[in-house]
Order: sequence, then structure tokens, then C-alpha cells
Amino acid sequence: MKPQDEKRMSKRDTPKPERPGYMLLEGKHAVLEALRVRMPLTEIFFAQTERSAASRAADQTLSEIEAYAQRGRIPITRTARRTLDEMSERGAHQGVIAAAAPFRYTPLSQVVREAKNRDNALIIVLDHVTDPGNLGAIARTAAVTGALGLVVARNRAAAITPAAHKAAAGALALVPVSQENNITRALEFLKKEGFWVVGASEKAEQVAWDAPLTGKIALTVGAEGAGLSRLVTETCDFLVKLPQTGPIDSLNVAQATTALAYEHLRQTR
Amino acid sequence: MKPQDEKRMSKRDTPKPERPGYMLLEGKHAVLEALRVRMPLTEIFFAQTERSAASRAADQTLSEIEAYAQRGRIPITRTARRTLDEMSERGAHQGVIAAAAPFRYTPLSQVVREAKNRDNALIIVLDHVTDPGNLGAIARTAAVTGALGLVVARNRAAAITPAAHKAAAGALALVPVSQENNITRALEFLKKEGFWVVGASEKAEQVAWDAPLTGKIALTVGAEGAGLSRLVTETCDFLVKLPQTGPIDSLNVAQATTALAYEHLRQTR
Repeated sequence: MKPQDEKRMSKRDTPKPERPGYMLLEGKHAVLEALRVRMPLTEIFFAQTERSAASRAADQTLSEIEAYAQRGRIPITRTARRTLDEMSERGAHQGVIAAAAPFRYTPLSQVVREAKNRDNALIIVLDHVTDPGNLGAIARTAAVTGALGLVVARNRAAAITPAAHKAAAGALALVPVSQENNITRALEFLKKEGFWVVGASEKAEQVAWDAPLTGKIALTVGAEGAGLSRLVTETCDFLVKLPQTGPIDSLNVAQATTALAYEHLRQTR
Repeated sequence: MKPQDEKRMSKRDTPKPERPGYMLLEGKHAVLEALRVRMPLTEIFFAQTERSAASRAADQTLSEIEAYAQRGRIPITRTARRTLDEMSERGAHQGVIAAAAPFRYTPLSQVVREAKNRDNALIIVLDHVTDPGNLGAIARTAAVTGALGLVVARNRAAAITPAAHKAAAGALALVPVSQENNITRALEFLKKEGFWVVGASEKAEQVAWDAPLTGKIALTVGAEGAGLSRLVTETCDFLVKLPQTGPIDSLNVAQATTALAYEHLRQTR
């Protein structure tokens, strides 16, 4: 890192990431992982230390963070350890905190506009999926199967963390994600826009292969463990299931979504 | 933990996990995670401490480990910290090491015997998949789709770690896994036993929906990133791909395996 790329904070400066919506990543490994999976970071804060640059370089993780930051042109700020202590939410920053800009969600009305002149379209709706790895994996499925977008809930739902970016393998930069306060209302909106709302549920009577998954489909999948909520289930036009022939009766939500998204592709090709 | 459930090691005792094939899990969080995902542990070693039981109880993670061990009837041994230092492979045991018994693999000949009187059967072959989470997720897919077993490579392949057990959600206790020195030779054996060897490859000309995935199928998937090796590709009877219509051209290996296993089920129902 060249000295001119860095700035030093005076005591009056307020660390930028305290702006609303910013996500703070704390600790050497969390920050390095975020850089590795190309999560868009806006700034990295290091605790100022008496140690020389040579001794800093001896810490392999810190050196890697600096190298990634330099390559990605992410500004580095060196500040008092006390300032990091104040920024820290978990008290385990190890002298490094990174700020990630708020994820840019896309209004659902804009996603739907893409479906206007199509006979077939797929939107994947997550009814409170809570695991960021599953969110990321489903984004990847959406990107591979040509889905127009994902819909997620604002509360009690997975955030777009480094684990989500890792599982998405770049897909979160490519697939529009809409964040909705109320999933049921989002589904009603999609119905008005000509989508069939299809719920994935083990309680379905119909196997996906026998269901009409052609046209504009809002494929709705439920939370890990709990599945679709009652209200969401009632809002669905119909439910489908994947057959189970083995000793375990449910797939991971991301794997089930993949199998169902491909069934839509198979029926509409 | 009642005192009679514990034993204390004398200096002459050799820690059991040094037996070949045992996996050692080091550190409070690794051990707790292994207990949570019900990885079969044979023994937990704690560093003897001068601290009272009351002060040990104040460490929430250690208390949880003790509670899980008690419920699961896993023996606890308290020994000198120095002994843990010697057992430790990574030097980060935090006073806790757990030993997991070697995973019990099933001979491939025994897995194949199950296919004898069937018209259709599925075996999933992993050509050096290296991520334990993917291995576990594929085991879960195998358990849900009724696959007879998994085949994995002995070297340069994912081990059955806590991350694998977590992703498998119990499936690794239900689906036989065969470990083979040479994947190509295992595929040749499966061919002789009446299986069609089907490779999943983006280079395939044929889309899975058009391929004959009926009968006895050895579905072969490649490593993350690298895909199928050249020799394995040449050994396949035919290759299939999943169509991609979006901006990203490949699924995660566990998701691709799920979609293909379901296509076998769809064609054979």
C-alpha cells in the first residue's frame, strides 16, 4: 500500500460506515474472506499500531488484506484502536474492520417489467429463507437458469453477507434482488402482473413434473425447516413437490429450488 | 457431567485418537459444531485446569460441549494441557480436542449388489469433489432421490468433516459411501455390473432431458472448477449437460447433481 493511498483519521472524523445500511465486517478472517469473494467493500479500517510496516508484513493475513485492498482500490484508513472498539458490534475486530456498502435492491415493478413481452418467465420468491449460503446458492441458480430476479423479505431473512456472496459466485452482481416488506403482498402483485404463484411444499399433492410450470412462474420456496408460511401457502395458485424415494424426506432449499427451476426450463424450452 | 462418567489420564496413557483413521477436531467451536451436527465422536479431551467447576460453567461454549457430550454419552477425558498440545495438529485447541471415529466406508461390490434385481438404479460418483459441504449436500441428494450409494476418491477429495455432516443433515449415516483409489477403475467395474456411466459436463452436446437416463446409471460429477478429469471423461458412456440460459454458465456441483438425479427419477418413474 503506498502511503498516499491511505489516510489517517483525526479524532473528529466519524467513521463512514456508521451510515445506515452499511454492513461492518470485523476481524482479519472475515475481512479477508469478504475480499476473496469480491464482496463490494467501501473502506477498510486498520487499528494504528506502533509496529513497523515490516512487522505488519509478517502477519500474513494482514498482508493479504492490504494486497487485495490495493488491487481492488479500496481505501484504507488507519485509526486509533479505540475508534475500532467503538465501531465494533461484536468486540472481536482484531484491529481490522471493513465497511460494505448497502446492497442495491431492485424494485419488484422494475423486475416485472422485464417479463412484459415474454411468454415464459421465472421469478424466485424466498419466503424467509434465513441462511445466507442458501440465499447465495439460489442467486446462482437464478443466474444459471435465466430467472428475472429474486424476491426476499426485509425482516427475518438472510442478509447479503460474505457467505451469501461466496455461495453466489458472482451471481448477486447479476441477478436483480427485490426486498419486500410483505411476501404475501408481493405475490398478489405478481399475480396481477400475470404470474402463476407456485409454492414448493412437501404437502403438495402434485409432483412438479405433472404440474403446469409453463408461462410466467413465481416459484416460491420456504424457510429452512419451517417451509412456506400458512398465509403464503394460501396465496399460492398451486403447490408442487419433488418426489422422495429415499430414506430422507427433504432436500436443502437451494437444491430443491434448482430442481424446480430446471423443471420450469424443461417444460418451456 | 457426573464424576463417574469422566476419567483422568495418567502420563502413561496414550490418547486414543492417535489410532490411524481417527479425525481430531480442535478448539471449542469446532467441537461444539461437530456435536451439533451429530458427527459421531468417540471421546472428548479437556485440558485439566485449576479453575473450579463453577468457573468452567461460566464458559458457555464449554458448558454446551459438556451438556452435548452427556446427552450423547460421549466419554470425557481430562488430561494435562501439555498432552493436548502434543495431540494437536494445528496448535489451536483452546483446551478441547474431540476424536471422531474413522468413517465406515462400504465396499463398492456391496453397493452394486443392491442393484441386482432392479431395472433402474442410481449411483453417484464424485471425481475428486474437494469441498466437504458439497460432499455432504450430494449425500443428502442421494438420500432423497433413493440413490444406492456414493463413490468418492481416496486422495485429493473432500473428507467427511463436520461441514460435510452439517450439509448432509443426517444422510451420511444412511447412504453407503465407497472410497476408491482409482475413479476410472471404479467406473469400469460399474460398467461390467451393467451401469451406464454418465458424465456431467458443460462440454456435453446432449442436454440431460434428451439423454437416456433410464436403467442403471452411474452419474459422475467433477471437481469444483476443474470438472471431470480427461481420463474419467473418456471412460464415460456419454456426457450430459444442463442447459444454461442466464448470465452465469455453471451451477455448484451439488446443485447440478440434484437436477440430474431428479432427471433420472423423472425418466424412470
